[in-house]
Amino acid sequence: MKLWRGGRLATLAGDSGWGLIDDGALLVDGGQLRWVGPSAEAPPADEVVELHGALVTPGLVDCHTHLVYGGNRANEFEQRLHGASYADIAKAGGGIRSTVAATRAATEAELLTGAAKRALALAREGVTTLEVKSGYGLDAATEARMLRVARQLTGVDVRTTYLAAHALPPEFADADAYIAAVCDWLPALHAQGLVDAVDAFCEHIAFSPAQVRRVFDAAKALGLPVKLHAEQLSDQGGAQLAAGYRALSCDHLEFVSPAGVQAMAEAGTVAVLLPGAFYALRETQLPPIAALREAGVRIALATDHNPGSSPTLSPLLMLNMACVLFRLTPEEALRGLTVNGARALGLRDRGQLVAGQRADFCVWDAGHPRELAACFGHNPLTERVFQGVS
Amino acid sequence: MKLWRGGRLATLAGDSGWGLIDDGALLVDGGQLRWVGPSAEAPPADEVVELHGALVTPGLVDCHTHLVYGGNRANEFEQRLHGASYADIAKAGGGIRSTVAATRAATEAELLTGAAKRALALAREGVTTLEVKSGYGLDAATEARMLRVARQLTGVDVRTTYLAAHALPPEFADADAYIAAVCDWLPALHAQGLVDAVDAFCEHIAFSPAQVRRVFDAAKALGLPVKLHAEQLSDQGGAQLAAGYRALSCDHLEFVSPAGVQAMAEAGTVAVLLPGAFYALRETQLPPIAALREAGVRIALATDHNPGSSPTLSPLLMLNMACVLFRLTPEEALRGLTVNGARALGLRDRGQLVAGQRADFCVWDAGHPRELAACFGHNPLTERVFQGVS
Ligand SMILES: [Zn+2]
Ligand SMILES: [Zn+2]
Repeated sequence: MKLWRGGRLATLAGDSGWGLIDDGALLVDGGQLRWVGPSAEAPPADEVVELHGALVTPGLVDCHTHLVYGGNRANEFEQRLHGASYADIAKAGGGIRSTVAATRAATEAELLTGAAKRALALAREGVTTLEVKSGYGLDAATEARMLRVARQLTGVDVRTTYLAAHALPPEFADADAYIAAVCDWLPALHAQGLVDAVDAFCEHIAFSPAQVRRVFDAAKALGLPVKLHAEQLSDQGGAQLAAGYRALSCDHLEFVSPAGVQAMAEAGTVAVLLPGAFYALRETQLPPIAALREAGVRIALATDHNPGSSPTLSPLLMLNMACVLFRLTPEEALRGLTVNGARALGLRDRGQLVAGQRADFCVWDAGHPRELAACFGHNPLTERVFQGVS
Repeated sequence: MKLWRGGRLATLAGDSGWGLIDDGALLVDGGQLRWVGPSAEAPPADEVVELHGALVTPGLVDCHTHLVYGGNRANEFEQRLHGASYADIAKAGGGIRSTVAATRAATEAELLTGAAKRALALAREGVTTLEVKSGYGLDAATEARMLRVARQLTGVDVRTTYLAAHALPPEFADADAYIAAVCDWLPALHAQGLVDAVDAFCEHIAFSPAQVRRVFDAAKALGLPVKLHAEQLSDQGGAQLAAGYRALSCDHLEFVSPAGVQAMAEAGTVAVLLPGAFYALRETQLPPIAALREAGVRIALATDHNPGSSPTLSPLLMLNMACVLFRLTPEEALRGLTVNGARALGLRDRGQLVAGQRADFCVWDAGHPRELAACFGHNPLTERVFQGVS
């Protein structure tokens, strides 16, 4: 057993507050936190690490990413700044279709090289649990390849989400026919152990609530939990629909209605906010933070890393953007990237520094956890402990 | 002499364009670029480094920072998100006054420790030239201490700027009396070799154009070039005033008038845009990019690192924010952080990969320079060469 002592712990214990222990210690036993408390009361240990007053937080949970893909879309970014419209770019084969083409063309090894590099960048900012979605294959073979690649990432705990209902692939003219295929592919992927949850994109530019229902019914038949890209650009009633399936989370939510918020609160569905996409798309409609707070909906944050609308690998920047753009408090933001991020993945064994949780934690060169959110474009991580090992 | 070969060079040669050399080489001789061109035509060298197709750009120039200070202001950031107004915080001794108090209370060694850590973070994103302003001392001894600390930073080429005319210190009731002191302190600091340029904050919450003139006249008497924090919150005519002194740069410029832009163009004054402060202060008035372009004003970018309105240490994030928030093109943004940043400091010997310039350059894990701007919260720097040494 190893004791980490003399740190300023932001335990995030309980449902609110930083849970600060000014001179605190953590006893780690086989990948788990055995004991957390004041250094002066720490039990004996085989090995002791002095933290010299450094800040310790739970390991970060990035609960919404599209980390596996081929190519990049920097050329489109540049074209738009030279005056091209989204329509011009789509006409030239750009947008999500270009990522689908590049992902289909990439080998499993190529996809893994790219995703591993990105996962490492996230880990270097303190991520210990990472969700990865499929959704750039849009055919059975490539969706499977994406999920297999995600499962091969190391150094972080990976949860995989099946998001074939992300966009209509070019070879399908009929969205209903494609949704039938999406439902058909799922059981085999699940049988291979590649799917932890099922997601869909409910939007006028993607799939209708009726189509999402069919995907969710397929998930339900296999006992898989669901999540939803909901109300990003318009109110489709996706939050209510997802809550009806006791969804783990609804994500984006800029246009969610009061009824949607209420349904999420009743179902215990987490609101995953994605300030990176909000920033990069220059959105102006804010998610209804006050209503979510009032209804008692848990709020999580994530990078939404993807090559188009949120090409960021910085969870710390998301902390700051959640505060600056969405007016979350620093504590809400950090809970969003830890305990509430874990809940958005259905995980209750991580995200707080309390006995019994996984020994995933971060050591920072900072005096107070609010500093992690107040700065932007900085990385004061000095050590990351993953399953008890630094 | 050392040859770096097989890289994709973004030379930024000339006044526009990336200046790409797809399979390019750089010959370095004693801290200078002796030759730049296609690898196939490279002259012989004592030592050869293979770049394996990596992207090479000039070293980054961060031409506007307030890097030396005591304390931090994360507590105020948190208080505002819990509902405190700027007035509440000022009444409680917050804002710039809290940084002045913490800076005055800090020893030279303490200030150096903090600033060196921040300079290292900037260097890790590719900064090779760094401007540092005084302006949190607001008394002769502390302003001198700040400038001495800046001069002690290593691993980057530092330019120091005297900004005692940043805010009115608490011991002065009369701004004119303080400006007289600011002018009095300057010759001794200059005699100690601590001042490369003189700056002031021209704004209704800071100093008037008439007061700025007095500071600029004191600079002019010593042959020192000037810069100005101009038109950030309102149009004070600061740009015209500064142009009248052939200022190196006017910085911020959200509210600059067409006449101000014209005066800058005629004087060759660089426009330094600071998207980090724009973002963090949630400003909505954009600097007049189209007018600056049309008038042929050089546009530079900088972090404006400071503990209040721009606590960022990421020049790469500034590239992205300049594109996303200000709609600069990726090429304009990179020129802003290289050749035009150098011009904002009066330096013509760096910022482009051409023979005769300093051998300050960056090697990136990227396929094209636009990728540096298209992503945010990422750092693909693989090697930084400073004065020919990596
Ligand atoms: Zn997404
Ligand atoms: Zn400034």
